[in-house]
Amino acid sequence: MPDQLSKRIFAELESLVLIDPHTHINPHAAASTTLADIMGYHYYTELAHSAGLPKEQIEEPGLDPKEKVGRLVKQLGDLDNTIQLSWLMDICSEFFGFEEEAITEANWEKLYDTAAEKMAQPDWEQQVLKQSGLEQVFLTNDFDDPLEGFDTNLYIPCLRTDDLVFHLGKSETRDRLAKATNLDIGCAHTLRDAIAKLFEHFTSRGARACAISLPPDFSPTAVMPEEADAVVRSLYAGNELSRDESKLVSQYVFWTLAEYCAVHSLPFDLMIGVNRRVYEAGVYQGQDLYDKRTSLIQYKELFNAFPNVTFPVSVLTSTSNQELVSYSWIFPNVVINGHWWYSNTPAFITFDCKSRLEAVPKTKQIGYYSDMYKLEFALPKFRMYRRVLANVLASDFVIGRGWSEERAIELGKLVLRGNVETIFGR
Amino acid sequence: MPDQLSKRIFAELESLVLIDPHTHINPHAAASTTLADIMGYHYYTELAHSAGLPKEQIEEPGLDPKEKVGRLVKQLGDLDNTIQLSWLMDICSEFFGFEEEAITEANWEKLYDTAAEKMAQPDWEQQVLKQSGLEQVFLTNDFDDPLEGFDTNLYIPCLRTDDLVFHLGKSETRDRLAKATNLDIGCAHTLRDAIAKLFEHFTSRGARACAISLPPDFSPTAVMPEEADAVVRSLYAGNELSRDESKLVSQYVFWTLAEYCAVHSLPFDLMIGVNRRVYEAGVYQGQDLYDKRTSLIQYKELFNAFPNVTFPVSVLTSTSNQELVSYSWIFPNVVINGHWWYSNTPAFITFDCKSRLEAVPKTKQIGYYSDMYKLEFALPKFRMYRRVLANVLASDFVIGRGWSEERAIELGKLVLRGNVETIFGR
Amino acid sequence: MPDQLSKRIFAELESLVLIDPHTHINPHAAASTTLADIMGYHYYTELAHSAGLPKEQIEEPGLDPKEKVGRLVKQLGDLDNTIQLSWLMDICSEFFGFEEEAITEANWEKLYDTAAEKMAQPDWEQQVLKQSGLEQVFLTNDFDDPLEGFDTNLYIPCLRTDDLVFHLGKSETRDRLAKATNLDIGCAHTLRDAIAKLFEHFTSRGARACAISLPPDFSPTAVMPEEADAVVRSLYAGNELSRDESKLVSQYVFWTLAEYCAVHSLPFDLMIGVNRRVYEAGVYQGQDLYDKRTSLIQYKELFNAFPNVTFPVSVLTSTSNQELVSYSWIFPNVVINGHWWYSNTPAFITFDCKSRLEAVPKTKQIGYYSDMYKLEFALPKFRMYRRVLANVLASDFVIGRGWSEERAIELGKLVLRGNVETIFGR
Ligand SMILES: [Zn+2]
Ligand SMILES: [Zn+2]
Ligand SMILES: [Zn+2]
Repeated sequence: MPDQLSKRIFAELESLVLIDPHTHINPHAAASTTLADIMGYHYYTELAHSAGLPKEQIEEPGLDPKEKVGRLVKQLGDLDNTIQLSWLMDICSEFFGFEEEAITEANWEKLYDTAAEKMAQPDWEQQVLKQSGLEQVFLTNDFDDPLEGFDTNLYIPCLRTDDLVFHLGKSETRDRLAKATNLDIGCAHTLRDAIAKLFEHFTSRGARACAISLPPDFSPTAVMPEEADAVVRSLYAGNELSRDESKLVSQYVFWTLAEYCAVHSLPFDLMIGVNRRVYEAGVYQGQDLYDKRTSLIQYKELFNAFPNVTFPVSVLTSTSNQELVSYSWIFPNVVINGHWWYSNTPAFITFDCKSRLEAVPKTKQIGYYSDMYKLEFALPKFRMYRRVLANVLASDFVIGRGWSEERAIELGKLVLRGNVETIFGR
Repeated sequence: MPDQLSKRIFAELESLVLIDPHTHINPHAAASTTLADIMGYHYYTELAHSAGLPKEQIEEPGLDPKEKVGRLVKQLGDLDNTIQLSWLMDICSEFFGFEEEAITEANWEKLYDTAAEKMAQPDWEQQVLKQSGLEQVFLTNDFDDPLEGFDTNLYIPCLRTDDLVFHLGKSETRDRLAKATNLDIGCAHTLRDAIAKLFEHFTSRGARACAISLPPDFSPTAVMPEEADAVVRSLYAGNELSRDESKLVSQYVFWTLAEYCAVHSLPFDLMIGVNRRVYEAGVYQGQDLYDKRTSLIQYKELFNAFPNVTFPVSVLTSTSNQELVSYSWIFPNVVINGHWWYSNTPAFITFDCKSRLEAVPKTKQIGYYSDMYKLEFALPKFRMYRRVLANVLASDFVIGRGWSEERAIELGKLVLRGNVETIFGR
Repeated sequence: MPDQLSKRIFAELESLVLIDPHTHINPHAAASTTLADIMGYHYYTELAHSAGLPKEQIEEPGLDPKEKVGRLVKQLGDLDNTIQLSWLMDICSEFFGFEEEAITEANWEKLYDTAAEKMAQPDWEQQVLKQSGLEQVFLTNDFDDPLEGFDTNLYIPCLRTDDLVFHLGKSETRDRLAKATNLDIGCAHTLRDAIAKLFEHFTSRGARACAISLPPDFSPTAVMPEEADAVVRSLYAGNELSRDESKLVSQYVFWTLAEYCAVHSLPFDLMIGVNRRVYEAGVYQGQDLYDKRTSLIQYKELFNAFPNVTFPVSVLTSTSNQELVSYSWIFPNVVINGHWWYSNTPAFITFDCKSRLEAVPKTKQIGYYSDMYKLEFALPKFRMYRRVLANVLASDFVIGRGWSEERAIELGKLVLRGNVETIFGR
């Protein structure tokens, strides 16, 4: 019976202890303290807002966490079809023993209090890690993060570089960079030195990846220090840059990052395709969308120039998935990385997962990352993925291609965990 | 058994009486009078032509309806795989008791005569409405439609605005507008007054939507009367406009329409992505195609500028579906509207339906509209959709997520009917 | 039982003897002589390289075939999930009785020797044709191919025109053209005469198609001899052409080809969407990728200008599939042609096949071609397609639409073979 087959494979995949290769966890406050930490995740605030809840009610200054949850609960009924809400239900059921079909105005307060009690336990973070089967959690650290005060064997540092590439025009970013590196930056060369210093700091603290999210129209190109020098000097002299000048600085910084990834053998996570602040009146982190008219051909020069840098690539849209399949099939240094954001729902995951598993070397596919901000989300998100993966392994490999169950499960484990170890291993 | 489950859900959905939120019904001749009205639908003429039937045979001036059907029947064998032909078979079976596997040169005449007899019954229109479970039918009215002589509680007026936005350069359109509004138009301000008058007329007659179809390269932007005034004056002075000037007029009229939608709380249906007259030698209404390289990012300014206008959005291609999912997930004023034209076949509907139901608030999804020109088509088209919807509810919600059948059926009914009432309600 | 149903349909489709309407077979060496001919197919060298095998090891000058296979075998474990590797396993099982689960360092030598022995049999080519159920094989001949020394009733000539359209700027191409036509070419008119002569030569030898692969940004447009004459003269005078001039020559040659397709009633195979040499350090034939941002709207002028030329169109990406469905649904002269290259894996084939079979006249769909370089690949590739096709016929037509098995099988046979005969028949 296919259904039983899929369930057996799922059970095997569920038993696997994982490394989560991309999250936004704050290692100093990794787990939640109230249900508001969980329901404050942008998936819920933006969907509740989209369904009619005014932003002002969600983001009222000084709003009490419990009151915030209460307001959101009123809108949840409109979202109960979504997979995003099913993550919440899974969390409440798995961690708080909540077994109602829905969170309603009648039952939420009890749930809130139960959760608060559980979360107040001193070992809550450890409980969540254990119950979720998480062994290591990759972070996304600001470039000026001191990377101190947490266990870098559990929480793996990764250098997030969006600010450097796209916001160096802001004096705040330049100040942060100067402070973080203790360097007097003023030209392309000293800027490069600063970047070098960041890489040294991060790798000395065990960083395993450099990461960036990129807009649909970005096309990396080689810019040498001498080409960028005049503009970088102008920027540091306090001048406003033109659009073309800003672009040149972005290109220069990006290319320099890739060079230091090569120097330090650090994978460079590219998360391609997001336009920021498309809906400017949206809630916090609920403003970004995209233009699907983007192509990996824009990365041709980059992929060719850095054969020794591994690029784990995430694409925002399922219409880019086939390019990702083809580019990782051809380029040795391009590997597939998870199911990102707007493509992280079962219909898209299913199709994308099928097309990847059947055409790209199995060692070049990172199945999934949670992208979570709070630890509690790894469990439901990975479970959603494991369910899809189990279905695909059952239908396409065991039934479709006559594989043994064991062989299919091995493939599943490889993309879920094995490849994370080899691709990000040091 | 999944198969039985899906059939039970389908039966429940079939029992629902519907409001069809977008059609091209002529309320003065809503039902067909001969089979030629049905087989003259562009889906059959264009497919028969594509399969080899010369346009001249289909559109011969003065062609007798029966002879036309006879000519089309000769080509039907080449189309019998298509879902479009299955609509025709459903109509013939449901309404005329035709139970053959195919319409052939041997059996079509009897069918034609049976149909003609049925359609000649004085209550044919009522019979079709009843048998199809249709309670209300939205129209697509020309801007100068007097909206008289029909029951506006059954046939709901909607203001179609393609001519105003894209064909004001034709003197015929300007004449029609002047006549319809009884205004002396000659500048941006009087043009605006005319549009205001159209909205008053339409809303006074119970209009529930403003609607427009848009080419892939259209990007709405705010144009104020003072910016457009010189060009509008030039147009009304009888000058030929340049491409840029024409575009400015289109932008101005479009933006003004959105403003009056806000004034009258009228949803603005956007049907995005069609290029007109791509195959100029094609049959009537069988000439339009598209360029898939379009994005909802082009509507960023519009969606931000009119938070109080609801935009039910249809996209022509399945490659735009994920953008539609994401944009309606983020923007409160963007809702999903049906499965349009070239995306209105089961393979695309299935994938699009799955991705929508799992990620967008359930209250923001209008499941389907028939887009029909003759009443007889609501039944087979909605049935096709209901079959897909039942399958998705069964596999993804009941089996995949453990929902009860009742809950899944409720979700189906909401997108089939409930949301039409709330989104277009007044 | 759906599973049994699908298997019965598959068995029927498997029994059909085929015409393969697009291959790269060398008719003078159609079958393989060692396993290196098979494993040297770019699918294996590029995937092995992508998974880590250095190009230098694969393409070492003077490398012994057996040694080459030995090196590739070391990497095969990383590819054993891919459908491409399943083709290899099918070949080894069907033709060489190899029944191991994998080709490993422990068993490959025996396999190599067994294969070599089989392939050394004088009637190996005939054995493969027979065992594969192949009646005719279309070729892809260089424009200067003498088309002599082989049976043109078995191996059907087709005129490949990439060099003429895109590489006439190379003196080597011009020399080949002069030699092939024995004409003194120097202007647009004599270039046109040369093309005419090629068509005469090819059609006199039984050619059934003209074919070309096209980059994503190509948009054919009518260029008359007088418009191109100055540039063609300049080219033949030995001048380097500018980008725009090169483009004009490409356009002129392309349009002239279409004109001669009309003269000779030759279908013009368009294979749309490939960018050449994207990964320049890749292995032979493993360097090409694409930019998915292309549209069939670019072919609007062409499709309208040549109503009497049949254009069998292949698209490189599944995101272009819906355009192909829609354009062949509307344009009488556009027909669907197979599943090409990066879209030739089951996940994409399944979705594309479903959407085609349900919306385009059944007579306008060429189900599949192998695109093979060696005869042994027709069997596993067509089998992959037939499996998908059987599943789609079972689920969408027999179960979904209540068709009889016989009727579904007839549809399958039509797209597999019948349409190849009618579309490329003379
Ligand atoms: Zn992230
Ligand atoms: Zn319509
Ligand atoms: Zn080929």
